[in-house]
Amino acid sequence: MEAYMKEIEGGIAAAKGFSAASHAAGIKYQGREDMALIYSEEPCITAGTFTTNNVKAAPVIWDMRIVYGSGKARAVVINSGIANAATGKEGMAICEKTAEALSAEYGGSREEVLVASTGVIGMQIDADRITAGCRELFSKKASTTEAATGAARAIMTTDTHKKEISVEVTLTDESKVRIGAMTKGSGMIHPNMCTMLGFVTTDAAIDKKLLQHALTTIVDETFNMISVDGDTSTNDTYVVLANGMAKNTPITEKGEDYMRFKTALHYVSEYLAKQMAADGEGATSLFECHVAGARSVSDARTLAKSVIGSSLCKAAIFGHDSNFGRFLCALGYSGVSFDPEQVDIWYESAAGKMQIVKNGMGSGYDEAEATKLLSEDAVTVLVDMHMGSAEATAWGCDLSYDYVKINADYRS
Amino acid sequence: MEAYMKEIEGGIAAAKGFSAASHAAGIKYQGREDMALIYSEEPCITAGTFTTNNVKAAPVIWDMRIVYGSGKARAVVINSGIANAATGKEGMAICEKTAEALSAEYGGSREEVLVASTGVIGMQIDADRITAGCRELFSKKASTTEAATGAARAIMTTDTHKKEISVEVTLTDESKVRIGAMTKGSGMIHPNMCTMLGFVTTDAAIDKKLLQHALTTIVDETFNMISVDGDTSTNDTYVVLANGMAKNTPITEKGEDYMRFKTALHYVSEYLAKQMAADGEGATSLFECHVAGARSVSDARTLAKSVIGSSLCKAAIFGHDSNFGRFLCALGYSGVSFDPEQVDIWYESAAGKMQIVKNGMGSGYDEAEATKLLSEDAVTVLVDMHMGSAEATAWGCDLSYDYVKINADYRS
Repeated sequence: MEAYMKEIEGGIAAAKGFSAASHAAGIKYQGREDMALIYSEEPCITAGTFTTNNVKAAPVIWDMRIVYGSGKARAVVINSGIANAATGKEGMAICEKTAEALSAEYGGSREEVLVASTGVIGMQIDADRITAGCRELFSKKASTTEAATGAARAIMTTDTHKKEISVEVTLTDESKVRIGAMTKGSGMIHPNMCTMLGFVTTDAAIDKKLLQHALTTIVDETFNMISVDGDTSTNDTYVVLANGMAKNTPITEKGEDYMRFKTALHYVSEYLAKQMAADGEGATSLFECHVAGARSVSDARTLAKSVIGSSLCKAAIFGHDSNFGRFLCALGYSGVSFDPEQVDIWYESAAGKMQIVKNGMGSGYDEAEATKLLSEDAVTVLVDMHMGSAEATAWGCDLSYDYVKINADYRS
Repeated sequence: MEAYMKEIEGGIAAAKGFSAASHAAGIKYQGREDMALIYSEEPCITAGTFTTNNVKAAPVIWDMRIVYGSGKARAVVINSGIANAATGKEGMAICEKTAEALSAEYGGSREEVLVASTGVIGMQIDADRITAGCRELFSKKASTTEAATGAARAIMTTDTHKKEISVEVTLTDESKVRIGAMTKGSGMIHPNMCTMLGFVTTDAAIDKKLLQHALTTIVDETFNMISVDGDTSTNDTYVVLANGMAKNTPITEKGEDYMRFKTALHYVSEYLAKQMAADGEGATSLFECHVAGARSVSDARTLAKSVIGSSLCKAAIFGHDSNFGRFLCALGYSGVSFDPEQVDIWYESAAGKMQIVKNGMGSGYDEAEATKLLSEDAVTVLVDMHMGSAEATAWGCDLSYDYVKINADYRS
């Protein structure tokens, strides 16, 4: 990690002026917390990326209006259990009531409260439960690591563990800014129906356009490079709230401070993206593909994503089976043109590194050794296309019986 | 079925002048037949469609040269067990030797022998075994239903049953032409690694360009509308051999006879495509999606394929779980733009038909009834987009534990 950056405690509430809360509102789940709040003492500028799905959940439409409209926000209210998607006008009314209820607590406007939901599509959220939940959340909010962790847990659906991180960055004038983040779910471009939701808070003073620019670039390199199952959710949301309370010299151009802030935002985003891929539904291992020697970054990304998105490659990783033809096949149908007889492939994991394919054919490697490499918790397939010098990395997970089990009866 | 067409016995050897054979050559499998021959007494014109994968197996490259070159063929030699893909120059030499060995039997040229392989990628085929197999196949060939069925079985890999059909078509001058066909595998545009191979023989006298035109159109409506797992194989092949031995007035224009022939070719292709989808690896049911009310046929196809290709929709079908949000979600990320609040969805199966989604929201249907509809061997999701009048159908299968099981350790 760079000298100007260090990991700190505090999660989503780590940055100055931010607090968090969680609450069991009984939206759908019983016996667990299912609502979370992120709140800032001061108004924040926002940046965000949202699902490209033509069917957008009500909260996505609500948030896009705010983030791409006024661009100002004070809070985010999140619920798990019900996605509030395919819910028509009633669903939009729930967003309004939620924002209304929360903003009433501090005497603000509902137009500065973001809303996010994840869970089953096509069910309505009970208005009384979610508005009562807002009041409880506001009264319970705290700027503590415990409160942040509670929030990170409350937004989980089929996730097996919470995903949160926070860092402190020292800028060139020695002022320190903090970034806190949490996510849930298992994908973004190809997320699972349980949806990717991600939230970042920072006390950095930064120009809104620069913040959105940094976020968009970073999402392309991190969340957009993971896939669990090829299904793009109706609810995907990744938003940043920046309240400027660190009082640093505002970052208004692409200088050294912007670079430091962006590096830190990239660090937390990549960390969380990999956490989501590794925690893909039913996953037993993180499946990474690094493609080098491509003609362009775009080609490299397409190739890497084709490999980690292939059901057959994913099943081979689950079986620790060195069926390298599947990697060649997935590169081949990616849509990128290349010379198959130039392709080299290696496996790399905690157990070592070994070349598997040389010039498009099996390298005559040792099968037992390959199985050993593929049996680790995290497996990387390194590909050299020998067509140029661009590279990219994508992250996914293996395809297991449990993926089918979880999704054959998700609603029960 | 139209009055001018009827199903007949005979499979791939049903058309005049065609014979078939199968043989246990020990290419990779033990204790089963793994080579097949299709042979015509007279030279044939050919039409074909092949994988779009950038990594093409050696036999695909060999066949494309013939079909799109001279366009003439006498025979097809097929092996299962090894795909002869990612095999470099040695793999191409195997194609040459195979064609050479077969053509030597009847004193012809190797340039008129098509070759097809299916199985594991990255392994070499033993030249002595496959050339010895060619000699055996030629000596065993027969124009019988038994020989045809033997061939349809010998080309199977993870298929659970053989796929063959034959029809007789009466043309306007009362002459009769026959079409015989067989396939193996579970997909085409998104086929499984065990690959889609399909072969059609006909004794119809038909212009080569018309034959290719009919085939291309039909493949777009049949094989290109099925998907098992989103992985496009290196070996996909669908070829027609037409020897003209029915002595019908040659079909040289798009008149009534062309229409009858094309209808019959469509019939056998759709039959086999649906058979492949229903026999997708690990499948417990055929999963059909019919989209109506789309702006264009292209939109309708994209929407229907997005639904049957979705892992989450497939898992819901496996679980007989009416998680209709997943269908809306898959329509939404297809890339086709539409008004989500116009969408209507019904389930239809042998157990009945019921509306599930009305104007983009749950219709308030009975869950137990929906589960009953989804518990049949074949389930159709009917979608009306209310955006236009175009329609299309796509076929897939559910996603089961067995898919993972089969593919986590396919090679052993």
